[in-house]
Amino acid sequence: MRTPLCEQFGIDHPIFAFTPSEHVAAAVSRAGGLGVLGCVRFNDTEELERVLTWLDDNTDGKPYGVDIVMPMKIPTEGTSIDLKAMIPPDHVSFVEQTLLKLGVPPLPEGEGREGVLGWLHSVARSHLDVALQHRPVLIANALGSPPKDIIDTCHEHGIQVAALAGAAKHALSHVANGVDIIIAQGYEAGGHTGEVASMVLTPDIVDAVGPDVPVLGAGGIGSGRQVAASLALGAQGVWTGSIWLGTEEYRGLGSNSEAWETAFTRATSSDTVRTRVYTGKPARLLKTKWTEAWAEDGAPSPLPMPLQNLLVAEAHNRISASNDPDVISMPVGQIVGRMNAVRPVAEVVAELVSGFEDAVARLDEIRG
Amino acid sequence: MRTPLCEQFGIDHPIFAFTPSEHVAAAVSRAGGLGVLGCVRFNDTEELERVLTWLDDNTDGKPYGVDIVMPMKIPTEGTSIDLKAMIPPDHVSFVEQTLLKLGVPPLPEGEGREGVLGWLHSVARSHLDVALQHRPVLIANALGSPPKDIIDTCHEHGIQVAALAGAAKHALSHVANGVDIIIAQGYEAGGHTGEVASMVLTPDIVDAVGPDVPVLGAGGIGSGRQVAASLALGAQGVWTGSIWLGTEEYRGLGSNSEAWETAFTRATSSDTVRTRVYTGKPARLLKTKWTEAWAEDGAPSPLPMPLQNLLVAEAHNRISASNDPDVISMPVGQIVGRMNAVRPVAEVVAELVSGFEDAVARLDEIRG
Repeated sequence: MRTPLCEQFGIDHPIFAFTPSEHVAAAVSRAGGLGVLGCVRFNDTEELERVLTWLDDNTDGKPYGVDIVMPMKIPTEGTSIDLKAMIPPDHVSFVEQTLLKLGVPPLPEGEGREGVLGWLHSVARSHLDVALQHRPVLIANALGSPPKDIIDTCHEHGIQVAALAGAAKHALSHVANGVDIIIAQGYEAGGHTGEVASMVLTPDIVDAVGPDVPVLGAGGIGSGRQVAASLALGAQGVWTGSIWLGTEEYRGLGSNSEAWETAFTRATSSDTVRTRVYTGKPARLLKTKWTEAWAEDGAPSPLPMPLQNLLVAEAHNRISASNDPDVISMPVGQIVGRMNAVRPVAEVVAELVSGFEDAVARLDEIRG
Repeated sequence: MRTPLCEQFGIDHPIFAFTPSEHVAAAVSRAGGLGVLGCVRFNDTEELERVLTWLDDNTDGKPYGVDIVMPMKIPTEGTSIDLKAMIPPDHVSFVEQTLLKLGVPPLPEGEGREGVLGWLHSVARSHLDVALQHRPVLIANALGSPPKDIIDTCHEHGIQVAALAGAAKHALSHVANGVDIIIAQGYEAGGHTGEVASMVLTPDIVDAVGPDVPVLGAGGIGSGRQVAASLALGAQGVWTGSIWLGTEEYRGLGSNSEAWETAFTRATSSDTVRTRVYTGKPARLLKTKWTEAWAEDGAPSPLPMPLQNLLVAEAHNRISASNDPDVISMPVGQIVGRMNAVRPVAEVVAELVSGFEDAVARLDEIRG
């Protein structure tokens, strides 16, 4: 399975794997894809520095990428304390009461109260500064075009810039801003996503940006058949995320591995929900008692980004520590219905490749 | 492009075309696909009788199918007047006020006040009785498994039964009920649809029902690339609907052709909405001032099927007569974004086939 992206990045398969785990990212890169490390979880740049050094040392010299979360327009930003003052008390009380009702205990004194700060612009920018000291070949931005100076800096370092888009007009604007690669993020994808499904979105974007801009299909891709479908739609590669949450290498990230494994192995494709409760922007999550509580009559509307994530940050830590498969806050796509066992990364990559080949062989036969 | 369905139905391409227009259905069948006539619009069985006779005479002996709308469980059903008594006055008044606000004039005295009755079980059953006097090779049911006696009757007449499914568990239940072919109706599809997108739904259903039950991919299919994607996902054929609303042969059905053409040619993939306002069950429609009025604060919740359709039936006639591209009530899928010109049916079929071949050629090259 080779497209021009393989030569461009020095990879064997045009399979891009977004993951918050350096162990998954390294394993994907070693298996011939491109592991892309999600940086949003790193509040501490020194930890990111250590992790990227580990990646440099554990990818057998193969390339990798990093993923940041940054709006193009640099927001006015106070400290985390200033922002917290903007959160209405009723929201705080709803979160507390919901956790109580769902049986999620408080954290032990002094433990993990800090939320994820990677949603803040200043923190995302520090991620990039650290990354530039290492050897990423790709910087992907989950919120579309990054600011112009970031794109320029990446290009000066020989790093390609990718950005997610949920509609053709956004893809066109990314290209106009200097973005090199568009990730066509379909409705079925985990995390931030729009309303247009991959079957329609991928060719929309491929045709809008033209043949000189590579497009990665994202959303609903967990098997080789889906890779074949995405490439049939005109993508030059695939951007995958959810499936890596079901791998052996992902285990151990966070404290609720056991609850998460129970939850994802039993979930069907219908057990996700697109909601603003995670970050303030629509994102697809596993449907659990936590997301359902926010959908009940009388629940408050989620706050805008970045306030919503600050609001629920401690709740996420408590939910994670409680290790309850019925109460989970986890971005995941509709492909969760097919994540029914924990597999090694290399096995998943091998199936994506061989399943692609089988699908093409079947199509050949149909064509006659 | 040949799959076992081609031999089974005596067609050249496994392209199934749902359409309310006999002219479109005949043209698709003549072009080597299978035209499937939607019967829900026929209040008068004599009109359906005439139309099916026309189809018999205008398909060059090629096969065709019919589509009915029938829940498996036979509902207790009063007359249309009894049912109308169950509609709350506030709903009636909302509809009237909305039409007034949107500038939709009343119908001339004595014209077209009757709504579409095909949603009523007794009417759908009469459609089948009429169809059995003709030569359909397929009966498709938009609401899943039809009642058992209907499936048996079709089989006695050598007619295959297809049913729409939006989740793997529904597909399994259809097969257990005796349905022969499953239409995997993805989120992006027009009309009644579930929440799982085709990229995930098609392989879910293909694997659930096993190799002996043919699956048609539905939702988001308007080009040969999308046909290739659907077949890559394991479908044996495709079920298309929206694209035929943009053909020359469709023109003249209903009175608002001009407004509809303006509306669909300018719509993007983002200009649809999944809502209960058409029938009471979630269905994807073109997003217009009419659907937006129902989404406003203070708008009533749509009524359950079949009440909602009775409620809005006259409104649909008025909207149609007003010929305003901003106020349209039309089921259509996200593929509407690619319906940018009115084309003859034969040209659309030819592109589906040649585009499929081009996509397979590209995949062959990627496989190497």
